[in-house]
Amino acid sequence: MARPARPHPRDLTQSWPDTPSTSAVGEVARLFSLNLRAAIGERSLRAAATACELSHVTLASILDGRAWPDLETIAKLEHGLQTRLWPTA
Amino acid sequence: MARPARPHPRDLTQSWPDTPSTSAVGEVARLFSLNLRAAIGERSLRAAATACELSHVTLASILDGRAWPDLETIAKLEHGLQTRLWPTA
Repeated sequence: MARPARPHPRDLTQSWPDTPSTSAVGEVARLFSLNLRAAIGERSLRAAATACELSHVTLASILDGRAWPDLETIAKLEHGLQTRLWPTA
Repeated sequence: MARPARPHPRDLTQSWPDTPSTSAVGEVARLFSLNLRAAIGERSLRAAATACELSHVTLASILDGRAWPDLETIAKLEHGLQTRLWPTA
């Protein structure tokens, strides 16, 4: 049975990832993706994904606001990129 | 098609939630659950879950290490309990 649809992070702002979300949860997702983008820096998506033991498809979907990463994925990203990504606001 | 099984957070330590995990990701999950338990404090699971707009079943599964909460759930928990839960180690 299909799951009921839920909005993607990108659906919770008028312009992903530039415009702040009026949803508290959407704003956490947006700030997380910006932190992730900054942490990747000049690396390719593939190189960053490999460092995190994730697929580049997963990484791209998070950056694009098309997925809600779970705790395992978030922890892999912080561990692989050696930086805090969870928003502190 | 069924997804391949993956270990639950509780499977990544010898004694959940007391014994540190040798897995970096498992340790984040363990510390998160301890932070969550502390933030709930004397409240009932149901009262805490209501404050977070989550089900008490979801809350119990996270505390028991039987689920990987996603970013939406983590953000709802921090927002509802008005505290940081993501481990800072």
